[in-house]
Amino acid sequence: MSARILDGRQVSKMILNEIAQEVESYQDEYGAPPTLALVRAGDDPASVSYGGMIERTCNKVGITFVAHTRSADVTEEEMVRLIRNLNGDDTVNGVIIQQPLPESIRSEVVIEALDPGKDIDGAHPLNAGRLARAAFVDQPQNVGPYFVPATPLGGLELLKRYNITVDGQRAVIVGASNLIGKPLSLLLTRHWATVTVCDLHTKPLSAMTEEADILASVTGVAHLITAGMVKEGATVLDFGFAEMDGEWVGDVDFENVKEIASAITPVPGGTGPMTNAMLMRNTMTAAERQARLGVREASRVSRVPVSPARLGKEASQASS
Amino acid sequence: MSARILDGRQVSKMILNEIAQEVESYQDEYGAPPTLALVRAGDDPASVSYGGMIERTCNKVGITFVAHTRSADVTEEEMVRLIRNLNGDDTVNGVIIQQPLPESIRSEVVIEALDPGKDIDGAHPLNAGRLARAAFVDQPQNVGPYFVPATPLGGLELLKRYNITVDGQRAVIVGASNLIGKPLSLLLTRHWATVTVCDLHTKPLSAMTEEADILASVTGVAHLITAGMVKEGATVLDFGFAEMDGEWVGDVDFENVKEIASAITPVPGGTGPMTNAMLMRNTMTAAERQARLGVREASRVSRVPVSPARLGKEASQASS
Repeated sequence: MSARILDGRQVSKMILNEIAQEVESYQDEYGAPPTLALVRAGDDPASVSYGGMIERTCNKVGITFVAHTRSADVTEEEMVRLIRNLNGDDTVNGVIIQQPLPESIRSEVVIEALDPGKDIDGAHPLNAGRLARAAFVDQPQNVGPYFVPATPLGGLELLKRYNITVDGQRAVIVGASNLIGKPLSLLLTRHWATVTVCDLHTKPLSAMTEEADILASVTGVAHLITAGMVKEGATVLDFGFAEMDGEWVGDVDFENVKEIASAITPVPGGTGPMTNAMLMRNTMTAAERQARLGVREASRVSRVPVSPARLGKEASQASS
Repeated sequence: MSARILDGRQVSKMILNEIAQEVESYQDEYGAPPTLALVRAGDDPASVSYGGMIERTCNKVGITFVAHTRSADVTEEEMVRLIRNLNGDDTVNGVIIQQPLPESIRSEVVIEALDPGKDIDGAHPLNAGRLARAAFVDQPQNVGPYFVPATPLGGLELLKRYNITVDGQRAVIVGASNLIGKPLSLLLTRHWATVTVCDLHTKPLSAMTEEADILASVTGVAHLITAGMVKEGATVLDFGFAEMDGEWVGDVDFENVKEIASAITPVPGGTGPMTNAMLMRNTMTAAERQARLGVREASRVSRVPVSPARLGKEASQASS
């Protein structure tokens, strides 16, 4: 039996339609659409291509897109200054800092300079820490508002839209990256999955992957996950993207694994489009919070909870 | 064959001796020993008892201990004001906020009010997020300085002092608490273990625990972990503490599991004393950083990395 295809293109289209309507209402109420600012240093081809995708998605839903690109020899200080300017610019609602930055620049220094309230890709440690400390979904969340990185959030959203159970399931994540593997593990733990994170030192990898009800791979190694490594009936989320024999493929040997799995994301057209949709969702969330509280207060709430009453309200509205 | 006993009392004694010498040097250099401030609201018996333990440990190593206790009807605003005062008090190097706080107070509001640079129990989301984003031990850490909660840090230290391999091992953690289970999973992932986190919805729990080379239990359910649930030769870390038949016992049925495991922590006398030792270690780290950089600058470095050059220096000195 062939697996159900988790169609990220179709689901993201639905979500982007929802967001386009929200952008319209937002514009009616506040006079201008939300703005997403993209920051890039250098011209890493994958970053340029991804940046173009974000721009097209913004155009599709009506979010204003601004790019701030610098050459690869930009200094760390200049990057920090740029980020600070965007923090202070009330017309900018969300900022995404594209990785990788040039080697001469420490990415955490630039990321931590960003206002956590504008950090729509959940890269700032304060957002990562609030996700880490958030309680299970049916318990009081008990942390301030936070952003989850768009890619793992998109994976979770796919599971939700296809009514795939997470609670009580065994999830195995191959790859412990900061923007996908680790936040995905915290998200799934928060939703009551039993989560295992594997890395390069996990041997044999198949001993872990074979046990997964939900298997997520985040390595960029083409066809790392073969049919023999997958449990019959598993749900497979493929976050990989690599070239093989002139074609774009994922971490998963799709053609063979789809005969074993019960549900699977294709590459391309699976988790990728979901990332774009979730980035737009996070931008809307940031813009709405800033509009409601004012940019300064939204930033304060996102930094330290100065107003306990307001924090309670915010926390109860957080969505992930 | 009976397991090796991981003697937290003995190891912590060695560490406290090391710290006592560091305190002496610190006092020689700066004129006064470091100060730890303990904050408590209400009189939860376990908190009172733990607080007494911290005080005795401070006295033992020469760290000045100050307690700020409030009645259970203290308001959230008063607690936040107290924390802010401690942030601004240059004589206070580290602060521990005892949990649980009274139900009328949201603990995250109080925790997030604390200067992350004085957060010696690693409770602030910024510290949790930096731990979450820190790279593997043999890679550039690439995050600013952070504090790890004392209890999981003590568990890791026990493994290190007994030369128990973490790299490549399967670690299973029972219990996803914010101060033990979750940070322990991130710490062990950082040290290249393959880590699974279990919670109340993991069924059957034994299917997971049986696979663990390193099994950690963090539930407070007396004797939850029985001999049949443990793999032959496993290392068992018991973070539980509960009363059973008038005696203090852990999560693990010690008498029977020690016949299966190759190494095991007793309760009491295992992970508990290590927590105290690590709290002293974190206090020293905070005090030394503040003395070196000045309290204001140490706080800034702990909040956002204003000075890239300094951050690099700090990051390379972070110990976990």
